[in-house]
Amino acid sequence: MPDPTNTSLDAVLDALVESYREPDPLNALESAALPNRRAVIEAFHHLQHLLFLPFFSTRMLSENTLRMALAEHLLPATELLCAQVSRAAAWADRDCRPADRREEGWCRQRVFGLLNELPALRETLQGDVRAAFEADPAAEHIEDIVFSYPAILAITAYRVAHVMFESGVPIIPRILTEHAHQRTGIDIHPGATIGPRFFIDHGTGVVIGATTVVGADVRIYQGVTLGAHSVRGDVERRRGRIEKRHPTLEDRVTVYAGATILGGDTVVGAGSVIGGNVWLTESVPPGSKVFFRPTKTQQEQR
Amino acid sequence: MPDPTNTSLDAVLDALVESYREPDPLNALESAALPNRRAVIEAFHHLQHLLFLPFFSTRMLSENTLRMALAEHLLPATELLCAQVSRAAAWADRDCRPADRREEGWCRQRVFGLLNELPALRETLQGDVRAAFEADPAAEHIEDIVFSYPAILAITAYRVAHVMFESGVPIIPRILTEHAHQRTGIDIHPGATIGPRFFIDHGTGVVIGATTVVGADVRIYQGVTLGAHSVRGDVERRRGRIEKRHPTLEDRVTVYAGATILGGDTVVGAGSVIGGNVWLTESVPPGSKVFFRPTKTQQEQR
Amino acid sequence: MPDPTNTSLDAVLDALVESYREPDPLNALESAALPNRRAVIEAFHHLQHLLFLPFFSTRMLSENTLRMALAEHLLPATELLCAQVSRAAAWADRDCRPADRREEGWCRQRVFGLLNELPALRETLQGDVRAAFEADPAAEHIEDIVFSYPAILAITAYRVAHVMFESGVPIIPRILTEHAHQRTGIDIHPGATIGPRFFIDHGTGVVIGATTVVGADVRIYQGVTLGAHSVRGDVERRRGRIEKRHPTLEDRVTVYAGATILGGDTVVGAGSVIGGNVWLTESVPPGSKVFFRPTKTQQEQR
Amino acid sequence: MPDPTNTSLDAVLDALVESYREPDPLNALESAALPNRRAVIEAFHHLQHLLFLPFFSTRMLSENTLRMALAEHLLPATELLCAQVSRAAAWADRDCRPADRREEGWCRQRVFGLLNELPALRETLQGDVRAAFEADPAAEHIEDIVFSYPAILAITAYRVAHVMFESGVPIIPRILTEHAHQRTGIDIHPGATIGPRFFIDHGTGVVIGATTVVGADVRIYQGVTLGAHSVRGDVERRRGRIEKRHPTLEDRVTVYAGATILGGDTVVGAGSVIGGNVWLTESVPPGSKVFFRPTKTQQEQR
Amino acid sequence: MPDPTNTSLDAVLDALVESYREPDPLNALESAALPNRRAVIEAFHHLQHLLFLPFFSTRMLSENTLRMALAEHLLPATELLCAQVSRAAAWADRDCRPADRREEGWCRQRVFGLLNELPALRETLQGDVRAAFEADPAAEHIEDIVFSYPAILAITAYRVAHVMFESGVPIIPRILTEHAHQRTGIDIHPGATIGPRFFIDHGTGVVIGATTVVGADVRIYQGVTLGAHSVRGDVERRRGRIEKRHPTLEDRVTVYAGATILGGDTVVGAGSVIGGNVWLTESVPPGSKVFFRPTKTQQEQR
Amino acid sequence: MPDPTNTSLDAVLDALVESYREPDPLNALESAALPNRRAVIEAFHHLQHLLFLPFFSTRMLSENTLRMALAEHLLPATELLCAQVSRAAAWADRDCRPADRREEGWCRQRVFGLLNELPALRETLQGDVRAAFEADPAAEHIEDIVFSYPAILAITAYRVAHVMFESGVPIIPRILTEHAHQRTGIDIHPGATIGPRFFIDHGTGVVIGATTVVGADVRIYQGVTLGAHSVRGDVERRRGRIEKRHPTLEDRVTVYAGATILGGDTVVGAGSVIGGNVWLTESVPPGSKVFFRPTKTQQEQR
Repeated sequence: MPDPTNTSLDAVLDALVESYREPDPLNALESAALPNRRAVIEAFHHLQHLLFLPFFSTRMLSENTLRMALAEHLLPATELLCAQVSRAAAWADRDCRPADRREEGWCRQRVFGLLNELPALRETLQGDVRAAFEADPAAEHIEDIVFSYPAILAITAYRVAHVMFESGVPIIPRILTEHAHQRTGIDIHPGATIGPRFFIDHGTGVVIGATTVVGADVRIYQGVTLGAHSVRGDVERRRGRIEKRHPTLEDRVTVYAGATILGGDTVVGAGSVIGGNVWLTESVPPGSKVFFRPTKTQQEQR
Repeated sequence: MPDPTNTSLDAVLDALVESYREPDPLNALESAALPNRRAVIEAFHHLQHLLFLPFFSTRMLSENTLRMALAEHLLPATELLCAQVSRAAAWADRDCRPADRREEGWCRQRVFGLLNELPALRETLQGDVRAAFEADPAAEHIEDIVFSYPAILAITAYRVAHVMFESGVPIIPRILTEHAHQRTGIDIHPGATIGPRFFIDHGTGVVIGATTVVGADVRIYQGVTLGAHSVRGDVERRRGRIEKRHPTLEDRVTVYAGATILGGDTVVGAGSVIGGNVWLTESVPPGSKVFFRPTKTQQEQR
Repeated sequence: MPDPTNTSLDAVLDALVESYREPDPLNALESAALPNRRAVIEAFHHLQHLLFLPFFSTRMLSENTLRMALAEHLLPATELLCAQVSRAAAWADRDCRPADRREEGWCRQRVFGLLNELPALRETLQGDVRAAFEADPAAEHIEDIVFSYPAILAITAYRVAHVMFESGVPIIPRILTEHAHQRTGIDIHPGATIGPRFFIDHGTGVVIGATTVVGADVRIYQGVTLGAHSVRGDVERRRGRIEKRHPTLEDRVTVYAGATILGGDTVVGAGSVIGGNVWLTESVPPGSKVFFRPTKTQQEQR
Repeated sequence: MPDPTNTSLDAVLDALVESYREPDPLNALESAALPNRRAVIEAFHHLQHLLFLPFFSTRMLSENTLRMALAEHLLPATELLCAQVSRAAAWADRDCRPADRREEGWCRQRVFGLLNELPALRETLQGDVRAAFEADPAAEHIEDIVFSYPAILAITAYRVAHVMFESGVPIIPRILTEHAHQRTGIDIHPGATIGPRFFIDHGTGVVIGATTVVGADVRIYQGVTLGAHSVRGDVERRRGRIEKRHPTLEDRVTVYAGATILGGDTVVGAGSVIGGNVWLTESVPPGSKVFFRPTKTQQEQR
Repeated sequence: MPDPTNTSLDAVLDALVESYREPDPLNALESAALPNRRAVIEAFHHLQHLLFLPFFSTRMLSENTLRMALAEHLLPATELLCAQVSRAAAWADRDCRPADRREEGWCRQRVFGLLNELPALRETLQGDVRAAFEADPAAEHIEDIVFSYPAILAITAYRVAHVMFESGVPIIPRILTEHAHQRTGIDIHPGATIGPRFFIDHGTGVVIGATTVVGADVRIYQGVTLGAHSVRGDVERRRGRIEKRHPTLEDRVTVYAGATILGGDTVVGAGSVIGGNVWLTESVPPGSKVFFRPTKTQQEQR
Repeated sequence: MPDPTNTSLDAVLDALVESYREPDPLNALESAALPNRRAVIEAFHHLQHLLFLPFFSTRMLSENTLRMALAEHLLPATELLCAQVSRAAAWADRDCRPADRREEGWCRQRVFGLLNELPALRETLQGDVRAAFEADPAAEHIEDIVFSYPAILAITAYRVAHVMFESGVPIIPRILTEHAHQRTGIDIHPGATIGPRFFIDHGTGVVIGATTVVGADVRIYQGVTLGAHSVRGDVERRRGRIEKRHPTLEDRVTVYAGATILGGDTVVGAGSVIGGNVWLTESVPPGSKVFFRPTKTQQEQR
């Protein structure tokens, strides 16, 4: 074996440069024009302040300073979002004919669409917090939920991302939900449709797929998968539309830890309870209680 | 649909301000007086130095400099903790009559109570490290455990948080364990009672509930839930006390990956082994071996 | 109970210093000579730039600046790695006779060995990205995968760590994979052997053990464990070699969410599909389809 | 000589601690309650934004965002100033009877007094900028003045500090002018009285004493001292009032580089020109031209 | 006097916004498009590395890494300069007809013009360093000069700024020299023409005007002014050209501390020595020695 | 003229690399082993805390925490100084025979020599502060002096640097005094000998040369030079010793702004007063009063 240290750093660099010469989309240098993840996350932090100001602010808040304390986050949020949505659109349209490319106005419209939603998002998220407080006896104060529960971070990121996803903003919604995924272990696709007063306890390992539909007052626990039967991504993309591949949970459904519910036609009827570790690939009617009773568990005693 | 960009930023701001006018505890501006999460985590980093100095310090340590290198972390840890415990207490007591509010002395007592525990905590944590080393053949050196294993971070945060939780400090214990949860995927409630030489391997997805009791020399693996049957948080809080809702694991119990053990009356007897993916909601006597033997798994061959 | 605030901070410090006097490897002050985790992670960030430059760089890249933009990361990566590999080797050899200690030349050789592998690593990682794009219909553009998928971070860290692990670098490979574990919930031991075009979807809770062997075109989902039957770490280390304790997955195997495959002799034959939540401790021939059909699940209806 | 390395670090520390035991105001530990210089300077940066927003802001400013962009600096400026003025007042009053100590209301009044002055200060400072532009042919655009001229930094700091000084705020005015002194070499005492359209060119070495009075449209150059004949500080303080010790410059006076004008009774009449390096300790009537004509300079030729 | 605290923060904000409504170039919001001072200074730091690499770099430099270590600074320097020169040109041309505005190509040409000068600048600056070493017996090693002497920072900034000034780059040259002015007290206008092997000792208070011409091997000391007789900036700008207003120093001239030399026609002949505190407004022939002999200094003895 | 943009960045890089190939000490790559300025300044900041703790610390200081608060700065100060003194010595000795090179012990001795001096330095510096308070009626509280006066920064840096200079530490003393020079405009050579209770008012432009001797209770003002008649640095260094080139000021001398005192044999007798702008190159007996009475100043009246 040749001694690798005979190679100089320049030879290493030559080889690396060479490897970028291969024609491959992953080598395309224009990917440097993709949105800046750091800036997207910074914008999200400003949105978190706008949505739950007293929990994030270090200012001494009062009736008199509230407006100014919000302004302090609204302006940078707007600027960051406008810049990053523009980058995302320009990159996604890079192969379009100029006439088909989205314009600055399109981008601003998306950003203002989100900003106009903020009061409604606040109301929805407060509903999520209240649902958590009702569900978890370990929370002493409702404020604890906002302060410490990873689910609130994950649901906030999802709800913001979903608004942008729905209005057609490329790339950025996924950056937002992956940011929350990284910090909470909860992976909600921005395309999912989730009703009010949603609660996730503990959360690590939760996966909610792109075409999932979740009703109101639904509770799920750590390790729950709302997923798809496997399909080949390239095949489906070629058919040009996204089919419903993930399940539907009607109102007031509870899904305990580690349960797996798969398939686009699978509907869990309103008020049903799906027990821990249950494996469900078919619909159940409203009011069902599905439990995993592993009677075959082998138990030896000394 | 009206073009959202017709709204000016000022209109957005007006709407946001309005949304904070709703009377709701989640809109209460005094939540800005809650403890500062960043400061709590900074204090924890200083405690990590005090507990495992040579693994965190970048100083050239020697017998002569040891004392000073510890002092460098003890003073800021103390100041940060005193300040944040005071904020937590003041916030939690905000509706009490002045006479019932906790005083500075109460806060200092909690902080010094923790500081006095540090040598004992060091001994306990070293036991946890040794237990990991004995259990994991993939660790070459015992020092690797402290250096790389997420479980040590999670257990350190838990053991510190538990001391504070026991002495009645509000809010802060949960911030500590959620900090560790975020970085390790291991969610241990600060109220749990966990004996010496505790080992968690890999750890992602582990959940240990608030009233769990764990004996000595227990080992658990990723994805294990020590949980509660579902209850409504608001009902229970109204009854004014926290009931035991999570299981008890006696000494020398091992619980493999993905197992779920639920219920406050469930006791896993000393020396038992609970296999991977087992679903356990009833007590088993000492020395039990409970395995999940899914003979009904369907297997097709081409 | 004595009032803990009667103790002065100096008494706390005395007790702490005393606790470090115990003869115990975990108290050994020379552990401060261990590698610096922060520096290792910084080196990894430079490597990520070298491997996927357009996705990380904020430079305006062009043919003309490509070489320089790579050089900007190659030099600091080299310096940081040389320094940290030297620390790791020195620390691991601290009890060796001087003659047996690894020299600077040994360290440089490891680093240049890795650097020379970078073009090949780029090719392999691009294969991993392509495999993800083919597998996941939720990805609109292949660039999204590099940009947002946690699996790519985890696999990049693993592939870099594996090269160093194979060449005998101590401690550092584990720091790299634990860094990725912390951010993605995917725990791949640097010792595992993983073939090309590897895909992990969602990923939280995946564990891949040190002696696992994975073929080409394998796909796994969140919560999958490729693990070992339990053994005592100290016993095995004494026998002086690492036995194969984790399974083998042949080419084109797919393992769905939550499945557990255990044991060094367990071989999943080529092209097999292992369903979600399956518990597998024995080999299955090529082309097998193993599903978890929990017919015993109890279902009550209202 | 004893080898200093025989001393341990602990002995060094002992000696240092001992040295702080001496009863001396400079050893008084409560000086740690003095204002925080860093916070004062941060407040000043916010004020600079409020005064010259387009020159400091990195926002994309427009009629629509102007208000919000100002709000972004007004709130933190207010909070920082309130906090630091309170610290300053508390420290300065530390030996007063409680009844004589300044209250929070007193502090807020000072801060709001300054904030209310901001529009007027803007007008005055714009006059200073215009005066500089008229005086210096090297400036191409008037905006260059704000952007690059150290005098504008120094005069801004002085004008802000002077408002606070006049309203009785202790300590902080001096911190502001010393901050500017450090960065520009221009040392203006906050107590000085300086009229509109004041210009300082280059500025390094300029000293303007506490009781100086400067009229409108005055220009001075680098190295100019407007100073006092020497007096003993302790004597004068004992007399309980600050006497006028520094000169008066009436309107439209110009003082060239290096000139020194001393004494509280020295009045430079309106429209006078004081040449470079002139030494002036007596009044001159309006319209005087005082030049330094060093005919005695000795000149040798080869 | 009305209590200023009766004003709310909102009223303060209203007044501030109002004050920006005045039509005045200093209120023009487009000034926010001026170059970013911080970015210009960051570019200059990269240039300092390129010019004196071993004195600034923290890399372990060797023949093998030299090229890469330089590349690490060349690319960001280029990007930062291109961006800021473009901003400067766009701002300066904001009132031009589109046809007259400078283009990207114009900007790149300026930046590459500077980059191509770097080797020549290195040679010139090394000459300046050597001149300092020959002149100052307090310097033990020639490397000390680069490392500690403020004059080298000031001359480096000047020489870089002068190249840009000569090629017509607006605004940025002045930012560079003011940066150095702030840190050294040496104020050299970027328009000045300064020959090789220039030395400034101590330097605080030195001023060198825009049309100064300095020959080779000139030495000046702290507090020296090479200035203009006063003129009104607005008058001269209207005449449309910059007249020579500052003196000429021929080769090998030495000017001691505090001397003032004024006027565009004033020529100090080659090899002359101008003593400390001399005031010179007329030319002196080559080889002159001009000293200040203040025989009239009054001296009293007790 | 060839269009500079025809040159590629690579050509620029080639030319730069080439320029470093010239054999010249200023191109020597080993200069990268010089001390790290940033680290030296960081060490100085720790020393400032040790010397004036209550003025720099943000801790809540008390008798109980004093020792720990000092320890927090003593350890990093020691480590940083040891590392940088070693670098300085190694670099300065790089051409010595191994036998003549200074050893680690030599370096530690210098650092501990300084640390042992700290209590004495505290006493001396407190004397300097008291002298300032007595001399300046503009200072309201003695604490203001430490807090705001640039002279205290400059004298602190000088006194620390002087101890290191005297014990033979190369390079670092000058870095310290140039750091202070940059921030205050006061340039004191570390070799100067300065007695107790030294006061500098305003300070910008003060220069105190390497062989100056200053007695007790001396006061000087801005722009004062205590300098040398010009000599050629290279000539003198060749003679192998540093001759006294700068003046001596005996006890209780006062020197007003802008005065220049030159020459190694020039002695200003005890208690003398040297007026502003005086030019003095010969000794004056004790009790002299030397004033600049520019009777030849020309004064025109309108």
